[in-house]
Amino acid sequence: MMSDSVKQLVDMLLKKKLTLSLAESCTGGKIASLLTDIPGVSECFKGCAVTYSDASKEILLNVSSTTLAQFGAVSAETAEEMANGAMKVFGTDVAASATGIAGPDGGSDVKPIGTVFITVTNGNRTECRGSILKGSRDDIRNGTAKSVIRMLTDLVGEM
Amino acid sequence: MMSDSVKQLVDMLLKKKLTLSLAESCTGGKIASLLTDIPGVSECFKGCAVTYSDASKEILLNVSSTTLAQFGAVSAETAEEMANGAMKVFGTDVAASATGIAGPDGGSDVKPIGTVFITVTNGNRTECRGSILKGSRDDIRNGTAKSVIRMLTDLVGEM
Repeated sequence: MMSDSVKQLVDMLLKKKLTLSLAESCTGGKIASLLTDIPGVSECFKGCAVTYSDASKEILLNVSSTTLAQFGAVSAETAEEMANGAMKVFGTDVAASATGIAGPDGGSDVKPIGTVFITVTNGNRTECRGSILKGSRDDIRNGTAKSVIRMLTDLVGEM
Repeated sequence: MMSDSVKQLVDMLLKKKLTLSLAESCTGGKIASLLTDIPGVSECFKGCAVTYSDASKEILLNVSSTTLAQFGAVSAETAEEMANGAMKVFGTDVAASATGIAGPDGGSDVKPIGTVFITVTNGNRTECRGSILKGSRDDIRNGTAKSVIRMLTDLVGEM
């Protein structure tokens, strides 16, 4: 179950005394919501910027307008700047970001619906992943959330 | 059903061409997640600051350290500054905030578990509500989300 893997991540963060923040676009707060379902999470989870517009990515997370113009909001480059921005603004040890096209609108030939970019970082190590997920808007959002939790668990496991 | 009332709010915002942002503390992204479940919501929903620490309330939402020290993170005063901060940083027509004690820890005699403060504002009109909700952590978070959606629907309905 999803809640078990989230609980496992939170337990690891608490045990290692590490703090986490998020920057969510296509998941729109879903990952933050899953984390904050868990009692005691405020010890390790500091917050999340749900940036559902280009302007908010720039203002809250310091994503550069050049990156947005050149690569688009749904790109590995933007995902990486979002994660770095979250880590900095929330002052955490670890951060993750997700940006993608959940549909049903917004897809293109180059970036079809389901295109998702995720970054997890601890400053020293940064992992980026691009995927094309299949299914409904819900499937894409849930699949993205699941990937973020898994990638964070891997990263934190090695710290 | 909750999703019906969220859909109704989004339809109203789209019809009136109004934009919305959020500042969530105890609900931790749950309201943003409910909103972004709905296809096409990016036309009206610009983002959310999930501020799960005092520092993030100051940095992202410009809540004053004096307010936090004097009234606490769970207070009408902080809720109002959070909503005003969200409206400003996301540049939206309407904003809402929620701050509270979802438990199972963190309660006190003066502010028991379930104490929640909500603010909705459109700049001209600001509504604040303080409540003490009963039940589990989930009940308190869901009840808070429901109240925020209801108060937003009332506010937007009159715009």
